[in-house]
Amino acid sequence: MNHGTALLWKRRALSSLSATRRGLPKEKMSENGIMSRAKVLTIDTMNPTVKKVEYAVRGPIVQRAVELERELSEGMKKPFAEVIKANIGDAHAMGQQPITFFRQVLALCSYPELLSDSTFPEDAKSRACRILQSCGGNSMGAYSASQGIDSVRQDVARYIERRDGGVACDPDNIYLTTGASDGIVKTTSSPRGASGQRADVGLQEFKNKTMLKLLVCGEGTTRTGVMIPIPQYPLYSAALAELGAVQIDYFLNEEKCWSLDITELQRAVNEARQYCNPRALCIINPGNPTGQVQSRQCIEDVIRFAAKERLFLMADEVYQDNVYAEGCQFHSFKKVLFEMGPEYAETVELASFHSTSKCYMGECGFRGGYMEIINMDDEVKDQLTKLLSVRLCPPVPGQALMDLVVNPPQPGEPSYGSFIKERTATLSALAEKAKLTEQVLNTVQGISCNPVQGAMYSFPRITIPEKAVKEATEKGQQPDMFYCMKMLEETGICLVPGSGFGQKDGTYHFRMTILPPTDKLKILLNKVKEFHQRFTQQYS
Amino acid sequence: MNHGTALLWKRRALSSLSATRRGLPKEKMSENGIMSRAKVLTIDTMNPTVKKVEYAVRGPIVQRAVELERELSEGMKKPFAEVIKANIGDAHAMGQQPITFFRQVLALCSYPELLSDSTFPEDAKSRACRILQSCGGNSMGAYSASQGIDSVRQDVARYIERRDGGVACDPDNIYLTTGASDGIVKTTSSPRGASGQRADVGLQEFKNKTMLKLLVCGEGTTRTGVMIPIPQYPLYSAALAELGAVQIDYFLNEEKCWSLDITELQRAVNEARQYCNPRALCIINPGNPTGQVQSRQCIEDVIRFAAKERLFLMADEVYQDNVYAEGCQFHSFKKVLFEMGPEYAETVELASFHSTSKCYMGECGFRGGYMEIINMDDEVKDQLTKLLSVRLCPPVPGQALMDLVVNPPQPGEPSYGSFIKERTATLSALAEKAKLTEQVLNTVQGISCNPVQGAMYSFPRITIPEKAVKEATEKGQQPDMFYCMKMLEETGICLVPGSGFGQKDGTYHFRMTILPPTDKLKILLNKVKEFHQRFTQQYS
Repeated sequence: MNHGTALLWKRRALSSLSATRRGLPKEKMSENGIMSRAKVLTIDTMNPTVKKVEYAVRGPIVQRAVELERELSEGMKKPFAEVIKANIGDAHAMGQQPITFFRQVLALCSYPELLSDSTFPEDAKSRACRILQSCGGNSMGAYSASQGIDSVRQDVARYIERRDGGVACDPDNIYLTTGASDGIVKTTSSPRGASGQRADVGLQEFKNKTMLKLLVCGEGTTRTGVMIPIPQYPLYSAALAELGAVQIDYFLNEEKCWSLDITELQRAVNEARQYCNPRALCIINPGNPTGQVQSRQCIEDVIRFAAKERLFLMADEVYQDNVYAEGCQFHSFKKVLFEMGPEYAETVELASFHSTSKCYMGECGFRGGYMEIINMDDEVKDQLTKLLSVRLCPPVPGQALMDLVVNPPQPGEPSYGSFIKERTATLSALAEKAKLTEQVLNTVQGISCNPVQGAMYSFPRITIPEKAVKEATEKGQQPDMFYCMKMLEETGICLVPGSGFGQKDGTYHFRMTILPPTDKLKILLNKVKEFHQRFTQQYS
Repeated sequence: MNHGTALLWKRRALSSLSATRRGLPKEKMSENGIMSRAKVLTIDTMNPTVKKVEYAVRGPIVQRAVELERELSEGMKKPFAEVIKANIGDAHAMGQQPITFFRQVLALCSYPELLSDSTFPEDAKSRACRILQSCGGNSMGAYSASQGIDSVRQDVARYIERRDGGVACDPDNIYLTTGASDGIVKTTSSPRGASGQRADVGLQEFKNKTMLKLLVCGEGTTRTGVMIPIPQYPLYSAALAELGAVQIDYFLNEEKCWSLDITELQRAVNEARQYCNPRALCIINPGNPTGQVQSRQCIEDVIRFAAKERLFLMADEVYQDNVYAEGCQFHSFKKVLFEMGPEYAETVELASFHSTSKCYMGECGFRGGYMEIINMDDEVKDQLTKLLSVRLCPPVPGQALMDLVVNPPQPGEPSYGSFIKERTATLSALAEKAKLTEQVLNTVQGISCNPVQGAMYSFPRITIPEKAVKEATEKGQQPDMFYCMKMLEETGICLVPGSGFGQKDGTYHFRMTILPPTDKLKILLNKVKEFHQRFTQQYS
């Protein structure tokens, strides 16, 4: 045995010794003579926090819906002819058409040879040229600056100024992002929640998580706490769980049209100060899944509360163009903040978020979005910019799309007419469907639906008979999961149970998008109605 | 004072009490009468781990390069006429043209009205139709399945089978991803590294991080350790730092053309077993920043080592089409694993990664990529799938592009000729530039450059005179950062110092892309040569 081999054997012995020390399973010979090794990565040896994550919008209900679609396509007989997925805010999947102008510009940016094609309108070409001139090598295939393409951030800033009646916006405060994930997950062992229920949590791939990451610190009772609404579009809670921050639930008032009540915010923060350090307050306006649109007065109150309690405000405003109810209007947190005078405008820290995925465009697949930050400490801003450099850049086609959303055709430009026509048609149809959904659901005994003032969802409360609650509990299911699963099997309609968003103990809901085309939505609502009546009868 | 107001005051008192308890700064009146509040988020109260992150590729050097560009455009006089950014693998920004066929299909997918345009080739149209038919509502604006579009994953699987000479690939093992970030960051307080130097770390936005997240567990000496090469394209280390995993450095052998030496792997893992639980081994082949292409024998040895030491293999193979040196060939870890027979093929756990950002296409901005997993435990795979559902889906245009990369025009199709011509031109030019770079750099005394066998970078070793090292140290700079910064100021050439990738103590390097057009590259290399001679003279 030469020196090298001896060394090798010594090392092997060492390595096998340490494996034994750790109690690792040893290699063993299987029947076919193959050395069978225990896997490195098993359910028992994997990251325990990952195991805690559960998901609702793409959870068991959706998995079963996909199965049912396959079974139908294989000719299996079902009590329905098609599966209707009303579980997710995916407008194009429900047949909504993209805005022609946006897609023309994206085609031009993808394949600039089309710039010499006379069938494309001049305003589409000039937008495409502006975007391409801001790209390295005039190509969407180049990385952009980490914060996003300069000219796009300038356009976003101008859009915000127009939207907010002239309140100034600095492009340096704009960060382009990778869209907004609509995923819903829940942790089975939740951070301390107000109701003791399972915390239902979600994740937005980038935007909120990055902001939250900056905020999280401390241990034990000084650990960062973040206030989120219940029910929530669960943007923050998966990120909170992942970051080990404390989730502080505040409940929206279902009896008052899911409005936000400062007294409830105060209760939540007071209780939370016993076990953590509340540092941020998340607001979703218009609300998801609840559809409420906050009044100007409410927003002022929230800002005063945040100032008083020293909370960093995070305003999710991705549904800012989805306001349907008469008397309701979207007010941005930024605008209200600046109208409250320098005491607030110069002190309250705010991050607000927007995306290309919702509103009239519904372009989820492109993963475009932006974040505006206000009153952020300069050194922290440097840290944010630095942190973003690590991921290099958001997808450039999504950045281009975001640019078009904030800089659409203007009066006098050739595409203005068709743009306005398409946008109006989509938003009017959504408004009509919001009303229709509320009206039909409220005709059903045992279903009670608040007005869908904005966003894209109804979140009706449903009465589930005791007998059904008992059967669900025996099956280890949430009662509204049991209800939704049964509806799927019997009608082909795919909804998300309220337990996927959080709700007051003992209440049950489901979230249903208002996105299917009107004809289909009518059929869907009638089926829901019939199902609910049948279900109630069966379990009474 | 009514009850409500009393309650409010009580709460205010309570809240102000708790603020005092925490030692938080109180509100104070500023001179202009505005209540000045201490910010919620300051450099002192932010997440401390974020502060530890530093970045090199887009760090101070690049910031200065951007400043210089602005100064030049404002007419300021400099010793150079333009800034040349050779710091980042951003092919299109360096003038590389996209593949026409790819961009035609993307334009068709973006704006399907073009399907009736007779100037587009039929094969581009049929590809676009296939992609759109797999999208919800036939629109790239719809969310895809979380794992990626089914038909794209099928195409990826067939590509892998062709690449690997028929070794089977199951589309269920393919996960589409959000590209690969090229960002480089470093932690100033590094996890335990072999050399004690600052750990220079990077992050790949999604792919590796998700895999690593599954692997991380344990505390103290049972904490998960992950082996990464030094120098590295720092994919893993930022993720490791973020996840709190232990970084285990293994050094590539510069004297042997940056080859990977099993003895060194063994040393690293043996030492690491004293303070952590090594569970994964990361390999970059072809290498970044080092450009080496691993031999089949080396890959076999690595696989045997991983099996023996029970390590999960992570193979970064994003440069699989970037192989230039004669006698070098790309061998995928998957193929070699399967050729080693069932003892390995059925046991060794492997994740391999590819992207649209490199090779002949260089489409960084679209953020497309995929991951293949082999021998992953079924329960863990379910957890992975679940985890991915949370972010909903990778950008759909990037998925479409990935599909085109794995399913390019075939012989007999109308676009085949032009595709082959364009691909060959790009790869031949890269091969020529790889050779040119090595040759010119090796003519300079004090610069020694290994052959650029593959990838897109040279990573030459540079001799820095003692006097310069001393001056850099006095400035608190790494000597190669000092060198590169000086080069930028004097020549306009933007490179990344070797300390941004990790290197043996006392050695210095820089990374330079071979991407500039040949004419420009020649100028650049000559300027580097002249600068090095001047620098050496100045500090001798």
